[in-house]
Amino acid sequence: MPHKILVAQGGGPTAVINQSLAGVALEARRFPGVTHVYGAREGVRGIVNDDLIDLGQETVANLEAVAATPAAALGSTRDKPDRKYCQEIFKVLKAHAIDAFFYIGGNDSSDTVRIVAEEAKTADHGLRAIHIPKTIDNDLVGFDHTPGYPSAARFVAQAFAGANLDNLALKGVYVAVVMGRHAGFLTAASALARKYPGDGPHLIYVPERTFAVDRFLADVKATFERHGRCIVAVSEGIHDDKGEAIITKLLGKTEKDAHGNVQLSGAGALADSLCEQVKAKLGISRVRGDTLGYLQRSFVGCVSKVDQREAREVGEKAVQYAMLGAGDGSVAIRRVGDYAVDYPLVPLETVAGKTRVMEDHLISAEGADVTPAFADYLRPLLGADVLEVARLRAAKVEKAGVLSGDVT
Amino acid sequence: MPHKILVAQGGGPTAVINQSLAGVALEARRFPGVTHVYGAREGVRGIVNDDLIDLGQETVANLEAVAATPAAALGSTRDKPDRKYCQEIFKVLKAHAIDAFFYIGGNDSSDTVRIVAEEAKTADHGLRAIHIPKTIDNDLVGFDHTPGYPSAARFVAQAFAGANLDNLALKGVYVAVVMGRHAGFLTAASALARKYPGDGPHLIYVPERTFAVDRFLADVKATFERHGRCIVAVSEGIHDDKGEAIITKLLGKTEKDAHGNVQLSGAGALADSLCEQVKAKLGISRVRGDTLGYLQRSFVGCVSKVDQREAREVGEKAVQYAMLGAGDGSVAIRRVGDYAVDYPLVPLETVAGKTRVMEDHLISAEGADVTPAFADYLRPLLGADVLEVARLRAAKVEKAGVLSGDVT
Repeated sequence: MPHKILVAQGGGPTAVINQSLAGVALEARRFPGVTHVYGAREGVRGIVNDDLIDLGQETVANLEAVAATPAAALGSTRDKPDRKYCQEIFKVLKAHAIDAFFYIGGNDSSDTVRIVAEEAKTADHGLRAIHIPKTIDNDLVGFDHTPGYPSAARFVAQAFAGANLDNLALKGVYVAVVMGRHAGFLTAASALARKYPGDGPHLIYVPERTFAVDRFLADVKATFERHGRCIVAVSEGIHDDKGEAIITKLLGKTEKDAHGNVQLSGAGALADSLCEQVKAKLGISRVRGDTLGYLQRSFVGCVSKVDQREAREVGEKAVQYAMLGAGDGSVAIRRVGDYAVDYPLVPLETVAGKTRVMEDHLISAEGADVTPAFADYLRPLLGADVLEVARLRAAKVEKAGVLSGDVT
Repeated sequence: MPHKILVAQGGGPTAVINQSLAGVALEARRFPGVTHVYGAREGVRGIVNDDLIDLGQETVANLEAVAATPAAALGSTRDKPDRKYCQEIFKVLKAHAIDAFFYIGGNDSSDTVRIVAEEAKTADHGLRAIHIPKTIDNDLVGFDHTPGYPSAARFVAQAFAGANLDNLALKGVYVAVVMGRHAGFLTAASALARKYPGDGPHLIYVPERTFAVDRFLADVKATFERHGRCIVAVSEGIHDDKGEAIITKLLGKTEKDAHGNVQLSGAGALADSLCEQVKAKLGISRVRGDTLGYLQRSFVGCVSKVDQREAREVGEKAVQYAMLGAGDGSVAIRRVGDYAVDYPLVPLETVAGKTRVMEDHLISAEGADVTPAFADYLRPLLGADVLEVARLRAAKVEKAGVLSGDVT
């Protein structure tokens, strides 16, 4: 049974990643054989730099307060370790006699765990290596959903519920861009903002379908003619039939990150460009664009209680699997009821480096909306305390018959 | 005592404007002499179009549900009535024998109420005309603050609290643009996001001070060198020493609205331009920009309970003033304790068409931050249930001494 534990956090922060951290730290304390619970600063980078902190010196009250705080309390990294990097990780783990390693992150992180576990086996160093899932993109293969997604989805749904009402009060076209490079789950969550007939978003574009600017304009025109307004949800990752990002097409240039990916988040250019298209081509005057940006993963005060609970539980389960000798793996979430889940330990190979996208039955046939099956899938994840909005019922008053009509 | 009441909502929606509407409708029902409570669809436009609904046919449950819903349930308008328009308003009021008129809005709306009241006096038609305050800009002269501002301020503070943590986990420069053309109160609210030493926002730029791009870059550079990161809050209305909007300077073009104002909201260009300046001139690679956009006034699920209560009360007080014959006026909010308020009826002339900006003692001497006096001013408005965030306390683990240093 492991004695020295190390936990780290990788990739983009979420509203509940610290729940998993607290789950690991607090659960590990329950095992009398555990002598040390360390955390690495700034993900795997903190390991290779041997920059560790002692979570055994944290109070329960502070761990609980951190658990309820968004972002990544240990710090994170965008480093994507190759084998050489993983060997460096293993070297530090071995030097500290760490025999259980937990990495909270997405599919890149699970790949890191996989390689580190291999290195340990090669060196005959007893190490339990467990991947704890986290990503607002909801793109881990074999998972019903991933911790972090429900809270971000809730933010998106509440943002669109409000934007829909705002746009109903002052009518026009409203385009909001949502995070998601390959998977449209987060953008799709905007559908849960609808309550009354005619509510937006009226159009939802996910990266699982080809985006054509002409088709988009035709969709907006038809919606605007029908409702006198139009709310659009767009994934940042929309692309044309050749796979070229729409933002690149519209702007003619883009920034690329260290991995050669087009920089999508942290700029409002896609929303602005789409709005300009609507103004120029459709002649609609009130056109507004928002980019939900970092708020959708870090806003303080928007969390799904279901997500909170599950993020805590995957951390706890990871420690239990490590302690009870279940082997290396990733703690998956499987839906086993309506609504209930289990947390099986699945092989790292089934998760590592793979990307799930929205299944076909979740996207409407014409490609600019989601299906009722998607709403059924997402609704229980948002928690029972979803906020309701209401409209007036509007019994009209008979006109007094004095209109001159010369003002409007 | 009035028998027929009309209420309307004008200008930009807020999180609590429907509290004031419910306050009017529910309070009016308490007076046996009141036979009709009407609402105008889409502000004053609904009046001149004689497009009214009967709020007497709304249930209490639905009015309460609407009260808890953001945006403007009656619909709103950006129309800024001149005297001729106000005469049309008065014509419809008279035709319906309306003897009490309530308009929920900002300083333009109070001016409309003022002119309509004058028309009524000229025509010798008994009309009580009351302005009920509302604006996230907090820019009404003679008010301690305006309903709508505390909830929007809470959103801004929570957004920056989250962005600060996110940026702490993945370091870089983060610039977020906040609404506010002339008044920086909403941008200033970002200061309430700070808790720990070194927390952002590190720089806050309000439109009450001249913005110089060179000075901004020097400020960012100094902060980045000190903290390894930098969070910036910027008002959309920042301008240079000649009064030209920074967005116009950086972009070389802008859209203007019907009133000839530069279109500031509903686009991400200012944040993007400032980020590009930081990347190009300071050579910092991880630079991200967000524009809080419409979420700050319409997000479902971010409201100050103090704001909710006060917005309800100004609606109720407006009806009481009209019923008890206090004359025309605007229902102001005065701070009379720490924290307690009164709602005096003030003359429309003291509010109408005037704009309050941040007082000098609320802005730091060097102009890139607020003072502790601002935090003292804002804190009670956010409500007692402000969300706390927490950090780990980070007891360092002694290094194992195996670093090769060849990965990083």
